[in-house]
Amino acid sequence: MNRKQLIELIKRKRSYLCVGLDSDITKIPNHLLDNDDPVFEFNKQIIKATIDFTVAYKPNLAFYEARGMQGILSLHKTMQFLDQFSNECFTIADAKRGDIGNTSTQYATAFFDKKASGFNFDAVTVAPYMGEDSVSPFLKFEEKWVIILALTSNKGASDFQLNTDVNNQRLFEDVLKTSSQWGSPENTMYVVGATRAEMLSEVRSIVPDHFLLVPGVGAQGGSLEEVARFGLNDDCGILVNASRSIIFASNQPDFTQKATDEAATMQKQMEATLREKGII
Amino acid sequence: MNRKQLIELIKRKRSYLCVGLDSDITKIPNHLLDNDDPVFEFNKQIIKATIDFTVAYKPNLAFYEARGMQGILSLHKTMQFLDQFSNECFTIADAKRGDIGNTSTQYATAFFDKKASGFNFDAVTVAPYMGEDSVSPFLKFEEKWVIILALTSNKGASDFQLNTDVNNQRLFEDVLKTSSQWGSPENTMYVVGATRAEMLSEVRSIVPDHFLLVPGVGAQGGSLEEVARFGLNDDCGILVNASRSIIFASNQPDFTQKATDEAATMQKQMEATLREKGII
Repeated sequence: MNRKQLIELIKRKRSYLCVGLDSDITKIPNHLLDNDDPVFEFNKQIIKATIDFTVAYKPNLAFYEARGMQGILSLHKTMQFLDQFSNECFTIADAKRGDIGNTSTQYATAFFDKKASGFNFDAVTVAPYMGEDSVSPFLKFEEKWVIILALTSNKGASDFQLNTDVNNQRLFEDVLKTSSQWGSPENTMYVVGATRAEMLSEVRSIVPDHFLLVPGVGAQGGSLEEVARFGLNDDCGILVNASRSIIFASNQPDFTQKATDEAATMQKQMEATLREKGII
Repeated sequence: MNRKQLIELIKRKRSYLCVGLDSDITKIPNHLLDNDDPVFEFNKQIIKATIDFTVAYKPNLAFYEARGMQGILSLHKTMQFLDQFSNECFTIADAKRGDIGNTSTQYATAFFDKKASGFNFDAVTVAPYMGEDSVSPFLKFEEKWVIILALTSNKGASDFQLNTDVNNQRLFEDVLKTSSQWGSPENTMYVVGATRAEMLSEVRSIVPDHFLLVPGVGAQGGSLEEVARFGLNDDCGILVNASRSIIFASNQPDFTQKATDEAATMQKQMEATLREKGII
């Protein structure tokens, strides 16, 4: 999906909600455990329950890899199920990959090249520590996106990302400035945590046009209002992720209804912010 | 495998060679392609051909993920095959993972918890960008190791890793100093590229006791002599990785013999440096 299509999708659904499929098998409703593939069944029901309010789905690879072959199979089935909604949602492999050039080419193949790997994600998250040649192989795939970690939502973000260099610039600022030259707003997004919403305006001053993927709203405590205030640009320019607060809103048979309610509530707030900003 | 066992293994085999299983299906000998699982067959033959000279094997996850379910299956079979050599080699998942705490716990499960995932690696490579809580979940597993990227062997290493901060300290130095407090030399190693061998002495001054995983010898141009001169400590303290120069030494039916020859040549050089240093 290209940038124009993504923006149209956001306007059509009046939402910039991304649902994180951190589908931990120990947290899904008990009654699903009798299924052949409980995680796939859970994902399928969550997707059906939220698709009207959601523009992106973001499976977190770790939760699938932790279950070995069975987990990877659940992810393949989930992505095959999502294929029917390919015009209705953007898909993100939250994988935090990144390696030397020839290896990053293989990772790009793993997530983007359906013929080779079975996966056809629109985007993949990448750590910037290894620099340009670890990111650029992902940018060679047309209408695919790399989402580079800039300022993350966790406590450890302050260990290195806020380091100030000799030019009085913090590491995440350098990552934004340097890496925004590798690609363009047509194929590059950034992860900026909602738990540091006040920093979104600093981020916006460096990358005014890029989409930002904003985790940390919901279970991690970030505020949607603040994210919208500081993060929105004229094209919307943000995808706000919520995982646990939606997918684990209930662990009872009513989990789909609760997930719908949570997603609908967020969509309503998002619609209001999009109207306020004059985007829709 | 714990540190004491690893050091004993190095002394017994008179080698600190790590063989990187970057087993690209487009580069393995043609005559293997008739096998049900050509990559597994290739790995099996490479392992048999090199085990006498090798203390560690390091599958590069990207090359398996790029082939989808089939590739992951090849990796599982390879690790099951390596099980019989569990006292004869250390195993490293070269995966460059790292995410917020609850997600890193899942990645640790994916690589270390055989019951959950089928994998039982000794170590996994991790990117430090997200800080302490992205690394510490891996350290909770006994006799398992995290190998943190410090100074990598690729061109992009200079994009951020060499950034100088307000204290005139480069990012990789800060990563070494800060992260060495999270664990200990019993469960933490660092990636330091052989293409920057002269910097190994700087690395050694910060982490004198930690093991270093040194890629970049061979196809990437690093020199084994320089790595040994600057990197060895009294316990050896280095694992030198070679991938393509050994596993793709030939793409003909003689590939096992050529791999043996390459590994044996490196082991001989390593034995000489270990004797010189008085380690064996």
